[in-house]
Amino acid sequence: MNNFEFYNPTRVLFGPGQVSAAGKHASQYGKRALIVTTRGSVKKLGIFDKVKELLEKEGMAVYELSGVDPNPRLSTVYKGAQICRDEKIDVVVALGGGSVIDCAKAIAFAAFDEGDLWDYFIGKKAASKALPLIAVLTITGTGSEMNTNCVITNEKTGQKYASHFLVSFPKVAIIDPELHKSVPAYLTACGMTDTISHVLEKYFDGTENAPMQDRMAEGVVLTVIENEKALKEPENIVMRSNLSWAATLALNGLNDAGRGRNHYDAHTIEMEASAKYDIAHGAGLAIVQPSWLKALCGKNPKKFVQFAKRVFNIDPDGRTDLETGLMGIAALKAKFTEWGMPATLKETGIPKDDLPALALSATKSPEGTYLDVQEVLDVLNDCYE
Amino acid sequence: MNNFEFYNPTRVLFGPGQVSAAGKHASQYGKRALIVTTRGSVKKLGIFDKVKELLEKEGMAVYELSGVDPNPRLSTVYKGAQICRDEKIDVVVALGGGSVIDCAKAIAFAAFDEGDLWDYFIGKKAASKALPLIAVLTITGTGSEMNTNCVITNEKTGQKYASHFLVSFPKVAIIDPELHKSVPAYLTACGMTDTISHVLEKYFDGTENAPMQDRMAEGVVLTVIENEKALKEPENIVMRSNLSWAATLALNGLNDAGRGRNHYDAHTIEMEASAKYDIAHGAGLAIVQPSWLKALCGKNPKKFVQFAKRVFNIDPDGRTDLETGLMGIAALKAKFTEWGMPATLKETGIPKDDLPALALSATKSPEGTYLDVQEVLDVLNDCYE
Repeated sequence: MNNFEFYNPTRVLFGPGQVSAAGKHASQYGKRALIVTTRGSVKKLGIFDKVKELLEKEGMAVYELSGVDPNPRLSTVYKGAQICRDEKIDVVVALGGGSVIDCAKAIAFAAFDEGDLWDYFIGKKAASKALPLIAVLTITGTGSEMNTNCVITNEKTGQKYASHFLVSFPKVAIIDPELHKSVPAYLTACGMTDTISHVLEKYFDGTENAPMQDRMAEGVVLTVIENEKALKEPENIVMRSNLSWAATLALNGLNDAGRGRNHYDAHTIEMEASAKYDIAHGAGLAIVQPSWLKALCGKNPKKFVQFAKRVFNIDPDGRTDLETGLMGIAALKAKFTEWGMPATLKETGIPKDDLPALALSATKSPEGTYLDVQEVLDVLNDCYE
Repeated sequence: MNNFEFYNPTRVLFGPGQVSAAGKHASQYGKRALIVTTRGSVKKLGIFDKVKELLEKEGMAVYELSGVDPNPRLSTVYKGAQICRDEKIDVVVALGGGSVIDCAKAIAFAAFDEGDLWDYFIGKKAASKALPLIAVLTITGTGSEMNTNCVITNEKTGQKYASHFLVSFPKVAIIDPELHKSVPAYLTACGMTDTISHVLEKYFDGTENAPMQDRMAEGVVLTVIENEKALKEPENIVMRSNLSWAATLALNGLNDAGRGRNHYDAHTIEMEASAKYDIAHGAGLAIVQPSWLKALCGKNPKKFVQFAKRVFNIDPDGRTDLETGLMGIAALKAKFTEWGMPATLKETGIPKDDLPALALSATKSPEGTYLDVQEVLDVLNDCYE
C-alpha cells in the first residue's frame, strides 16, 4: 500500500423516498437554483417537475438547463455557466446520471470564469471556486455523485477529458433507488459494467499489500453480480439499492486510497472511442476492459488468480496462473455479454481502419501519457471482433 | 438495507512518515495548540517532542495536557477545557489512541462551556461548536480518528458513556504506522479485537439485504486476521498499515450505513465492566462479544452461517445453521485467545457476585435501553469462566 490522502466531504442521503429532501438541502445554499438535466425520461417521468416543486416549496426561484447529452459537451457547459451568471444562481442541482452531474460540476466552476473553459481539462487552469452542487442521481454507475470527477467532451476537437478539482465534490448526493426503477435494462447494465470497471482499474494496478482495498473491490464486483436480477426486475428496490451503493463506493476514493496508479487506463482508451462514436460509456468499457485486463494478466497473472478465485470461485488447481487469470477475465466478459453489453468494437460500427488513430489519440490524452501506443492498438485489435 | 445519511468530512493522511505533516495542518487553524496525550510511551519514545517541534516550526505556541488515562476521565476533560480557555487555544492536537482522541474531542467542545459537562453524555445538551481537532494516531483500533464518537468515564458516578456530535469529527486524522511499531503485542491485540467487534456489532444487527456492507465488514475481519503476524513482527510496517486502515474503515460510518440498530450492544455491556474495573476495552470485548454473539446466533443463525463460511471457510454441509454459526463464533473466540486476549471475566478479577449489578447498569445506560437485563446477565454468566 502506498501513502495516501483521503478526503470526501459529500453528504450522502440514501434510500427510497430521499428525493423529497432535495428542496430542504438545496435551499440551505440560497434562493436561486439551476436544475441541470437530460432531455428525455427525467421530464417524461415527472421527476423534473417533482424536484422543481420541492425547490419552489422552499421559496426558491428555479431555472432550467435541460438537454444534457450522454458524453456531455463543452458547449452545454458554456450555456449553463452563462445562465448562472445572468440569473445569479446560488446553487446548481444536477438531476440525472454521470453525464448530467459531470456537466453540472463543470457549470458550477465555469460560472466564475468567462474565459476558455477547455483550459480546465487540459491542465492549464485549476478551479478553486464553484457554486454549491446538489446531485440527485437518476441512473447509477459513474459514481460522480460522490467524487470530483468531471468528464467533458469538446465536440470541436473530439477530445473527452476529465478534471478533478476539490471544489467539484457535490455538497449533497441524493441516491434514491425509486428514481432508478424506470432505467431500462441496457442502461442499467452499462452502469453495472462501469461500476465494476472502476474498481478493477485500481485493483489490477500492480499495487501490492492493499488487502483491505482488495476486499472492498471484490465486494463491489460480487455485489453487482449478485444483484444482476435488477435487469429482469427493474422495480426491485432492494437490488436497485445494492447496485447504487456499490457504484457509489466504487469511485468515492476509497478504492483508490493507497493504490499505485493515478490513472484509469481502460477508461482512457474507452473514452477515445466514446468521444468519437458516441458509444454508451459502460458499453464501451464492456468491450475494452476485458482485453485490457488480458494484457495486464500476461504481465502479472498472480493478482488475477486472486480475482478468479474470490469472485468467480475458479479453482486454480492444476492450472497455471495465467490460465486461471484468463478464466477469471473470461467469466467477467461472459457476465457483461449476459447482461446485454456488446462484445466487440465491430458491433458498435467503428471502422477497423480507425483503430491506429484511436490508439494514438489515447496516448496523447492528459491521462494517457503512461500508455504505449502499440499496446493500446493490440488491445483494440483484440476486442475488435 | 435501511435509508441512511452518510457524512464524514475528516481528511485522512495515511502512511509511514505522514506525522511530519502535523505542523502544516495544525497551523491552518491558528497559532496556539494544545497537545493532549497519555502519560507514558508517547513521551518516552520521543513522539511528543517530535510533534511539538513540528508545531513550533510553524510558529505555533504549544501547550500540553498529558496523563490522559485509558478510559479517559471527565475530570481530565474539565482540566483540558480550562487550559483552552485560559490559553486561548486555537486547535487541539490529540496524540494517542482512542482514549486520547476521545478526551480531546470532549475538550474541544467543552472549551465553549463552563457548565456541567456530563450533560453532553446523558443527552441533556448537544454540542454545536468545537475547537478544530487534529488526531495523530499512535495506537490503532477504536476508529476514533475518523468519527464523532467520544467515550468518557465519569469517575464520580462510575458511568462510561458516549457522545456523537457532528462537531467532533477530527479535521485531520494522521495515521502513520511508523508510530505504531512500538505498540506492545497485548495492546495491538486489543485494537485488533476492537476493530473486529465494531464491524460485527452491525453485521449481526439483523438488517437484511445489505450485501455491500456485509462484504466490507467481512473484509475488515479477514484483513485483521490475515495481518495478525504484526503481533510477532511489531515493526512490520505493511501489516501495521493494513491493521490501521481496517480499523479506521470499521468505524467511520460506512459499516453502519443502512444497517438497522443505532447501538453497539456488546460495547455497551463491555463498557460497564471497563468503567468499573479498568479492563482494557479490547480485552473486555474479547470476553463479552463472543458470548453476546452466541445469544444472537440462537435467535437467528442464518447470518452466522454466512460469517462462518466467508470468514472461516467453515463448511455448513451436514450441520444445522446453529451448529455452523456457533463454529464460526468459536473460531473467532479462538483467534482472540490466540492473540493473547483473556477468555473469561474471571481472569480480569471481577467478582461473580457483581454480575447482576453490571447487567442492571448496562440496561440503564443511554445506549443500553434496548437491552434485556436477564439476557445481559446470561451473557455475563456465559463468559464468566
